[in-house]
Amino acid sequence: MEGNQSNIAVASPSGVSSVPAGQELAMQTLGNSSQPPAPHTPSAPLQQSRNSIRLLSGILAVNILLLGSALVCGAAFSKVKVLSDEEMHIYLTILLILTTAWMIFYMVHTASQTQAVLYKDSHAGPIWLRGGLVLFGVASLIMDIFKIGYSTGQLNCESPVKVTFPLVQLVFVVVQTYFLWVHSKDCVQKESNITGCGLMLTLATNLMLWMSAVADESLHQTGVEALKPNGSFSHLRDGSMFFKAGGSECECTHSACGIFEKGFYYLYPFNIEYSLFASAMTYVMWKNIGREIDDCSHHKISFRAKGIVFGVIAGLLVVIAGLGVFIVYEVEVTGDESKKRVLIMYYIFSIVGLILMSLVSLAGSIIYRFDKRTVVSTKNPTRSLDVALLLGAALGQFLISYFSIVAIVAEKNTRTISILNLTCSCLIILQLCLQNVFIIEGLHKQPYHAEPPVVCVVFINEGTSRSNPYSPSLRNDNDEPSPAENSLELSSHSHGFRSTTHSSSSRMSWKRRALKEISMFLLLCNVIFWIIPAFGARPQFDNGLEEWVYGFSMWVAIVNIGLPFGIFYRMHSVASLFEVYLTS
Amino acid sequence: MEGNQSNIAVASPSGVSSVPAGQELAMQTLGNSSQPPAPHTPSAPLQQSRNSIRLLSGILAVNILLLGSALVCGAAFSKVKVLSDEEMHIYLTILLILTTAWMIFYMVHTASQTQAVLYKDSHAGPIWLRGGLVLFGVASLIMDIFKIGYSTGQLNCESPVKVTFPLVQLVFVVVQTYFLWVHSKDCVQKESNITGCGLMLTLATNLMLWMSAVADESLHQTGVEALKPNGSFSHLRDGSMFFKAGGSECECTHSACGIFEKGFYYLYPFNIEYSLFASAMTYVMWKNIGREIDDCSHHKISFRAKGIVFGVIAGLLVVIAGLGVFIVYEVEVTGDESKKRVLIMYYIFSIVGLILMSLVSLAGSIIYRFDKRTVVSTKNPTRSLDVALLLGAALGQFLISYFSIVAIVAEKNTRTISILNLTCSCLIILQLCLQNVFIIEGLHKQPYHAEPPVVCVVFINEGTSRSNPYSPSLRNDNDEPSPAENSLELSSHSHGFRSTTHSSSSRMSWKRRALKEISMFLLLCNVIFWIIPAFGARPQFDNGLEEWVYGFSMWVAIVNIGLPFGIFYRMHSVASLFEVYLTS
Repeated sequence: MEGNQSNIAVASPSGVSSVPAGQELAMQTLGNSSQPPAPHTPSAPLQQSRNSIRLLSGILAVNILLLGSALVCGAAFSKVKVLSDEEMHIYLTILLILTTAWMIFYMVHTASQTQAVLYKDSHAGPIWLRGGLVLFGVASLIMDIFKIGYSTGQLNCESPVKVTFPLVQLVFVVVQTYFLWVHSKDCVQKESNITGCGLMLTLATNLMLWMSAVADESLHQTGVEALKPNGSFSHLRDGSMFFKAGGSECECTHSACGIFEKGFYYLYPFNIEYSLFASAMTYVMWKNIGREIDDCSHHKISFRAKGIVFGVIAGLLVVIAGLGVFIVYEVEVTGDESKKRVLIMYYIFSIVGLILMSLVSLAGSIIYRFDKRTVVSTKNPTRSLDVALLLGAALGQFLISYFSIVAIVAEKNTRTISILNLTCSCLIILQLCLQNVFIIEGLHKQPYHAEPPVVCVVFINEGTSRSNPYSPSLRNDNDEPSPAENSLELSSHSHGFRSTTHSSSSRMSWKRRALKEISMFLLLCNVIFWIIPAFGARPQFDNGLEEWVYGFSMWVAIVNIGLPFGIFYRMHSVASLFEVYLTS
Repeated sequence: MEGNQSNIAVASPSGVSSVPAGQELAMQTLGNSSQPPAPHTPSAPLQQSRNSIRLLSGILAVNILLLGSALVCGAAFSKVKVLSDEEMHIYLTILLILTTAWMIFYMVHTASQTQAVLYKDSHAGPIWLRGGLVLFGVASLIMDIFKIGYSTGQLNCESPVKVTFPLVQLVFVVVQTYFLWVHSKDCVQKESNITGCGLMLTLATNLMLWMSAVADESLHQTGVEALKPNGSFSHLRDGSMFFKAGGSECECTHSACGIFEKGFYYLYPFNIEYSLFASAMTYVMWKNIGREIDDCSHHKISFRAKGIVFGVIAGLLVVIAGLGVFIVYEVEVTGDESKKRVLIMYYIFSIVGLILMSLVSLAGSIIYRFDKRTVVSTKNPTRSLDVALLLGAALGQFLISYFSIVAIVAEKNTRTISILNLTCSCLIILQLCLQNVFIIEGLHKQPYHAEPPVVCVVFINEGTSRSNPYSPSLRNDNDEPSPAENSLELSSHSHGFRSTTHSSSSRMSWKRRALKEISMFLLLCNVIFWIIPAFGARPQFDNGLEEWVYGFSMWVAIVNIGLPFGIFYRMHSVASLFEVYLTS
């Protein structure tokens, strides 16, 4: 029914031998690759091969993930114990070995060839993502050591898979962290079929690890809850898939088992976070396969905090207050009497913080309306991906908030804590929406003070010309330093020309200053809203209401899925706000 | 950190008044709109406004869906009955009213303006999708009438929401079916902010209806199972959200209640399918907002079955065999004794059919390797969306198959039925993968015999020129009629030229014929593999194994999520194979 006949043919025609001259040239350029071809215009065969790589590797990943989900669901939720955790751990071990082997193959073979990786995507794998990966990777390593220690104590009665799995995972974490640290910016051009499938295998393995960790952690928490004297959920299946909390008959042969078991509980969230980070980076690498990037488009913008006072001070005040609240929370939350008090304190702090952040984000969005800067209109896959990750990660926090709201409204509970919780949940949704709009608008604006890539020639109809191209701008401070002046402008009625650049040291307009203050304030606030959940505050469980409405096992699953995404979101938004700060 | 300074500025610069001449022209063209601007090159402000519409409407839809999921989960799975179905039905009713109001507003106000809809996407809302929508819409209407009838009998003891909801849904289905039938091809240019939010509201409402229907249907089936004398799941919560199967104290005041209740059971799947169809069409409309389409690129290709014998005969044989199996299955499956026999018959038929389809798809993909036709390289959002829907819908069938495989392998069951079921599940996965690859490759090829859009001028170095531009091709039948000859080709060493077109009535090469036979065979096979599940065969439940491994409620949820997507997939692939047939 379709097909655009009017476009120029590209593949070699059979009957007539003449290939368009321009096309031949492009193909030769691609073959020799000494000179990069024009960016963002992949030819038809290239586009076709990219599509077929995506299709094949996508089908591979989907199959791995669906088979894995069936195993996880079967092991975790099956009523009859036909499916044990052993099958799942064997499956995960095989995946880990295959992925590790592929990564080593990639590093030794593909990346060593000069032809294989012609371009580097300077926006992929930013330092916060790689730093976070290493941080969470170290925590995962410690967790694996704990697991190995725990399992060796049970070797007499448990399957050897229980020792093999953490051992293989340990090697996997080391190899993968190195692999992503070094190669996350690669845009692979050669052998991209194998690379595509390899990257999708890596992505699927990380998502499988994430899925099994979430299921395992949820079952573990449910099991612990069932053991509590006043726990009303004793009918639920107890123990996690990896180690049984209670119900197991297998006795540990050494005394350190208890410590190892406690270690798990604290390190699991970091491992979940590690899988998410690795997945995000692998996905970006996969999207970059066969991409050709214009290296010239990247500008170094230096960090300069001079003159930004209000944002920093207000932000630091929120951070210090938050740290105080967090410490008091962690110390006092164990007591039944003090729990209510610290929860009220926590909610009031959150509400004040969220209101401030919402107002400030709104103000920022309003300032953008009066901002005359150009929107970056060129297609930038990394930028789109960044925005998609930001929006996707926000869903986790949304999920928890909406479930809280429904539970509180349905229960018609009018206790102070419930009302504070309700307000807080509503404000989280509002704040995330406003902040996302602010960040995304900011990321799509042209930076204010990038180094001009060309000598800026502005034609004006004055007839006089000032010749020094590097003289500082003589403009008034209130004028917007438009980026349009950084690019070549043509006017049909020009009588002369003058060259001008404007120095980045010129004093800022109030709009720029306000945007910088706002992004710095939001950045610091996001840091504290990252620290509090990342280091163990769980008002979602301490508060007890949602748990009662939805049942413990369901609420645990929701929080365990939503919270790691929420933590990822805060880290990501800190990085994005830093970028908005720099480009404002 | 980023921003491409080298692209030409577009927004109005503040300091200097000169706007590039070309840009001004483009803006004027957009404003007057008498002549459509160049397709596929949206300007920066247009791109920005499209992005902001997508962001805002996307956030709206996510919020509606998450709030809805919390309500559905709370009502369906909550242990304590804090959340009732009433809240959920009130929420759904509000959504339905808002969506209906918006659709009426759209039809009356937006679509009546000549400026609002400048382009129509000829690929959006194809006839099979609109036809399916009307078919399933009619079934949904009957279901709603049954619901109203049932609820009026319980008005004395049940909430009035139970009557209001199906009444509002009835109006909604009528309005939406008309709306999508008439406007599914629209590419809205004006007031796109309201339209974007409205379409996302429609999409979210349809997904909410789908979600609540799946949950409701699963609970209903679980409730019915719990009432069975030998049902081992009596501890599960009984009854659906909409009507209680058994456990309710509310007595119906008229005698037709029983008939109405049975009617639900048969009509639910059609209603679920209706929501999926409407969601797909709304999503395509949403993606088309602000899109500018080149109308000229569409070619009429006429259907011609002449000469295609093997594919039709083999396909019809499979269809007839399938219909026989289906009828015997439906008649005999109720008896305990005959159940095993008909299941074996069903599985053997499926295995033979799937093997044939897999082999044929594979052969088709191999033929494509030798096919010299050009790949359509122009960006086509509807085509990409079509492919995404095809791949996405296949996930449903994958989900069921993988869960079956894991259950059978874990149980280590060696009964004939289990082994046949295992073989069948593996083959389904293989067949879907191969068929997807075949269809997608076929869709991306240039059509063979489209009417040439330009007079085809081929420069050759013979020195002689044949002048008649409409003379039939003099080529040998074995030569591939390359589409490159349909477009303008340039050769730097040409001494003369000859014009040539090739008639579509020329005899086909064996490759073309084979591709046509293959697509026709696959088309007919997909029809029968659509009919069998669509009209009620459920070997997934009759077989009893997975139900035992995963528990009835979990297996019901998996099948209720996966099967409607599987049915959607078969219909979609029939339509896609028809297109592949036409363009081969």
